[in-house]
Amino acid sequence: MKKIIQCVPNFSEGRDLDKIEKIVNPFRGKNGVKLLDYSRDEDHNRVVVTVVGEPEALKVAIVEAMGVAIEVIDMRSHEGQHPRMGAIDVVPFIPVKNVSMTEAVELAKEVAMEAADKYDLPIFLYEKAASTPERENLAKVRKGEYEGMKDKLQQPEWKPDFGPDMPHETAGVTAIGARMPLVAFNVNLATDDLEIANKISKNVRYLSGGLRYCKAIGIELKERGIVQVSMNMTDYTKTALYRVFELIRIEAKRYGVNIVGSEIIGLLPMEALIDTAVYYLGVEDFSMEQVLETRIME
Amino acid sequence: MKKIIQCVPNFSEGRDLDKIEKIVNPFRGKNGVKLLDYSRDEDHNRVVVTVVGEPEALKVAIVEAMGVAIEVIDMRSHEGQHPRMGAIDVVPFIPVKNVSMTEAVELAKEVAMEAADKYDLPIFLYEKAASTPERENLAKVRKGEYEGMKDKLQQPEWKPDFGPDMPHETAGVTAIGARMPLVAFNVNLATDDLEIANKISKNVRYLSGGLRYCKAIGIELKERGIVQVSMNMTDYTKTALYRVFELIRIEAKRYGVNIVGSEIIGLLPMEALIDTAVYYLGVEDFSMEQVLETRIME
Repeated sequence: MKKIIQCVPNFSEGRDLDKIEKIVNPFRGKNGVKLLDYSRDEDHNRVVVTVVGEPEALKVAIVEAMGVAIEVIDMRSHEGQHPRMGAIDVVPFIPVKNVSMTEAVELAKEVAMEAADKYDLPIFLYEKAASTPERENLAKVRKGEYEGMKDKLQQPEWKPDFGPDMPHETAGVTAIGARMPLVAFNVNLATDDLEIANKISKNVRYLSGGLRYCKAIGIELKERGIVQVSMNMTDYTKTALYRVFELIRIEAKRYGVNIVGSEIIGLLPMEALIDTAVYYLGVEDFSMEQVLETRIME
Repeated sequence: MKKIIQCVPNFSEGRDLDKIEKIVNPFRGKNGVKLLDYSRDEDHNRVVVTVVGEPEALKVAIVEAMGVAIEVIDMRSHEGQHPRMGAIDVVPFIPVKNVSMTEAVELAKEVAMEAADKYDLPIFLYEKAASTPERENLAKVRKGEYEGMKDKLQQPEWKPDFGPDMPHETAGVTAIGARMPLVAFNVNLATDDLEIANKISKNVRYLSGGLRYCKAIGIELKERGIVQVSMNMTDYTKTALYRVFELIRIEAKRYGVNIVGSEIIGLLPMEALIDTAVYYLGVEDFSMEQVLETRIME
């Protein structure tokens, strides 16, 4: 059975198309690696690449792309709205098919070790690959950003997992980790009252007492005159999409507000939606092995 | 983009395991062909094979398997509960991925032409591949069964599409066609009154005024003390699963009966369930291209 892992590296270049093409190029035309998407943001000055592949082939490609990024990006002159600490800012590995989280963590560590050694680059392991609980949260790892890394790496508790204790002069520091797929799921409400979206967000999100794998904020969709509960579902296998959807419906009732629809931004695994369909249809004893595509991909 | 077609040939041997293995063997170990399942029924004396593959590779494999079936099955001594007219009773091709129905029909015709020529076997094209409206319905094509084929083939309106006007002495006649995937979808009702399941079946099925791509009958689940609307959804892209499910819920209300759950028997394409999830979550502007597995299989 073929193993498939997804990788979503973020590189700190969102403006120079020529440089972006160079960085992305190692993911093209390789057996066992498939470039699915790359989208750049000029304000963030950052490109987010989505690639899937078999573990070994993916490792070779990502290490190569990291080398290119180090060559073409100079963090000393990098500006952008998105927090960043390095040319290769963050590299998450995500299990997709016939791969356990343990194997994704293993791959993250192998890539970190190899790249740190090859490019003399300090690397933190984060999320499921983290070596301490403090390093699980990417925001904490990245705090201080590129400019603050020199001092941060001197602190004993922030000694990198791999590579030197000094940031790479032009490439800074990189975080490599493993996590579940994120699903960007937004629920639109039939009101223009942002307060209501914010209150509901607080009720459903983990941070303030809600569902374990749900991050949420209220957002205004001004052109439509409505508001939205904008969410990141961080583990749909444990916090199902239908569950947060029905919970929002229940909370919105308090304000006499209806749901007008929802949005899914970007990619998601089929299982997140199939699980939802199986719930609404009340399908008994359903197995993902009944899905033709599961069998074809084996 | 790789084209994938499914094929579900039915062979008239459900008892002799040795013969069944011989028939199935051509689908094994071939590049571009994957044997997903084969299940035999002793009472029907029939084996149903499920295989997917790229069109050319699939053609080679099915023609080879047909040759084996002709060698090992003798219809002169075949008995079984299921209607049948030949050793290779029926061979439907089903578009799965990057394949149009027109291409599936084309493949059915190529296989029919090649096998008729190679094995001196009379072949009817049926369903979407049918050459006349009377031949669309497999039951009509098969009427008379193996024993009646000699006379049937003499009638001008039942001259085979390919091959001789006489049945193959030991292999009879074969039907080859193209169709949409079937989804076997059953909805369980909180009552033991079969009459209610039958009435609802009549209301939702095409035959008696219901949904265009729905076949339905009422069935008793004696061991559970409930009844079921047992359905074949013949084109889920046009008659969605959620639509028939909600219609059954509405009809059941007339009798004060609730739905207790549902069943999906065998394989189905992910799209049938994703479409259902997208309906219940009210996802706006969703595209199957957002499903990771769609992209991986491209």
